[in-house]
Amino acid sequence: MLTEFAIPVVDAALGEAVQAAIDFKTKPPGSLGRIEALALQMALAQGTPAPVADPARLFIFAGDHGIVAEGVSAWPQEVTAQMVLNFLAGGAASTVFARTNGAEVTVVDAGVATPLTDAPGLVRAGIRNGTRNAAMEDALTADEVDRALAFGAGLAVEAAAGGVKVIALGEMGIGNTSAATLVAHSVAGIDLSVLTGPGAGLDAPGVDRKLGVLARASARRPGPLEPAEALAAFGGLEIAAMAGALIGAASAGAVVLVDGFIATAAALAALAARPEAKPSCVFAHRSKEPGHVRMLEWLGVEPLIDLDLRLGEGTGALLALPLLRSACAMLNEMATFESAHVSEKKPVSGKDA
Amino acid sequence: MLTEFAIPVVDAALGEAVQAAIDFKTKPPGSLGRIEALALQMALAQGTPAPVADPARLFIFAGDHGIVAEGVSAWPQEVTAQMVLNFLAGGAASTVFARTNGAEVTVVDAGVATPLTDAPGLVRAGIRNGTRNAAMEDALTADEVDRALAFGAGLAVEAAAGGVKVIALGEMGIGNTSAATLVAHSVAGIDLSVLTGPGAGLDAPGVDRKLGVLARASARRPGPLEPAEALAAFGGLEIAAMAGALIGAASAGAVVLVDGFIATAAALAALAARPEAKPSCVFAHRSKEPGHVRMLEWLGVEPLIDLDLRLGEGTGALLALPLLRSACAMLNEMATFESAHVSEKKPVSGKDA
Repeated sequence: MLTEFAIPVVDAALGEAVQAAIDFKTKPPGSLGRIEALALQMALAQGTPAPVADPARLFIFAGDHGIVAEGVSAWPQEVTAQMVLNFLAGGAASTVFARTNGAEVTVVDAGVATPLTDAPGLVRAGIRNGTRNAAMEDALTADEVDRALAFGAGLAVEAAAGGVKVIALGEMGIGNTSAATLVAHSVAGIDLSVLTGPGAGLDAPGVDRKLGVLARASARRPGPLEPAEALAAFGGLEIAAMAGALIGAASAGAVVLVDGFIATAAALAALAARPEAKPSCVFAHRSKEPGHVRMLEWLGVEPLIDLDLRLGEGTGALLALPLLRSACAMLNEMATFESAHVSEKKPVSGKDA
Repeated sequence: MLTEFAIPVVDAALGEAVQAAIDFKTKPPGSLGRIEALALQMALAQGTPAPVADPARLFIFAGDHGIVAEGVSAWPQEVTAQMVLNFLAGGAASTVFARTNGAEVTVVDAGVATPLTDAPGLVRAGIRNGTRNAAMEDALTADEVDRALAFGAGLAVEAAAGGVKVIALGEMGIGNTSAATLVAHSVAGIDLSVLTGPGAGLDAPGVDRKLGVLARASARRPGPLEPAEALAAFGGLEIAAMAGALIGAASAGAVVLVDGFIATAAALAALAARPEAKPSCVFAHRSKEPGHVRMLEWLGVEPLIDLDLRLGEGTGALLALPLLRSACAMLNEMATFESAHVSEKKPVSGKDA
């Protein structure tokens, strides 16, 4: 999958140098916990002892899903396009959080069903308006998947070439927890019943109905599937584009900041195909959508924050972004024991302390 | 304790109005999880439907502890004063994070053993240079405690009067996990063995030795103690000043952002005396210091982040501060379904969705 994008190998010598720099800072060694690990990870992903989090850009990948015809969402499909306009107007949670937390935003029409007019800040994949109904037929052709992957990769590579250091992946798409669930199930083998949740607000009977639809869709193309096959079978265009963006960003030395349930499904597909991109990925938060924790476990990653979010749009990524900034500042700006003339820890604490 | 500072009663009608405003925002109701609860809490604490997080100010309360003569810390006492100079020079983790996350900093010499010269950004309590050895005698007199409480309250009230909306409480003091442990044990009855941890880096034999010293100190003044009694028995000046700052800030309508283990012990003392201040308090993070979780449980609060931090200085508070800013922005800047022309959720999801 996108094998033309080479992903740099982690530089072990750089890792040792950065860890030593962290340990000389004026604090008990290890006392900044995961902030220290995050600084090291960002240094390695960017290939520098002085990583930075700015500029950071959120791509909001929007797409629609034919499977909504089966009644898998509590919201009408028109909301996808309406929310794109809300993003462009700056009134959505993600765009408010982007302003608050200092991130650029690009809205991507990866495949919204409703035709959208041109607008500043909106880019279009132009592949198709929404996917086919994955309960009845493959959501996308192999060619459509390839184009969505390549489009996402192109966006990320171009952003990184323009200086963007952190690429956050968010999405909007009525019905896309269904597509994400099917992709994660078919690639990773996680139980459908564990992955299927309320999404943007189904009640318990609604979740049962959704599970029945997803089981039927899955039976049409039983797993395990290769990531690209799964994306074709179940969609969506925004998920494929996010997977492509992840691979493109990692290849270009940008840190990838992955949002919640749907973005993680895209990451799962991307990393199943290109595991060498994993060191570039920071997982922002643990979603309240119940299956998310299982995807994170399958990936072997621990997200930064856990605030019962279940909105998507990159909101969790934006809330986590300041932690990346602080991690870099720790590495770049903190004094050392020597420079600050601070005494070091006593050599033996048990007996002499 | 500081009963001259009246703390406003939470306004139920304001709470209902703010919750309604949150529910009309363009997102599934409740989908921003704890960010929504945080926005509501800040509105109530500030007594306004439009709470803000800026300006935010971190007070770093520094103090020394006579009990270090018993060998309870892995670091020499001189580090407290050295770190005060590091704060003033901007090279410490907390001052780096304050710059990165947009907070003002005031360093408070609440009772450092080493005499410090005047410096911009440094204020002094002038009560005494360090506490007495709590293993041998009361660390402070009742009068010294009262003065430290009042000094902290005065700082917070003055900051709030000057427009500060969020007051973060951090600290520095070699040996102050010992004082914090003794205060929390004697006020809340939490087992000493549960509360006693490695602090800034004791090894296992060091923790055992510390526990023995703390058990001896505690036996001198067995609990339960009133908060002011506990502060006198065990100190420290920075802990008493933080407790006072919490009460002062709550009385003045500022949000109090509480850092880790030691700041939480101060909050525990303050809230045991003045529980009506609790709605104003946001607990920033869960420390890696093992007893912290027990103090949080006793208080019945859930911190915002959990990143294995164990540094203090207000670092956890500063890392959580952007979440407060985002919560306010959600309330103040997000569009409503009506204003953004976004369709609402379908009325029945189970059958019709």
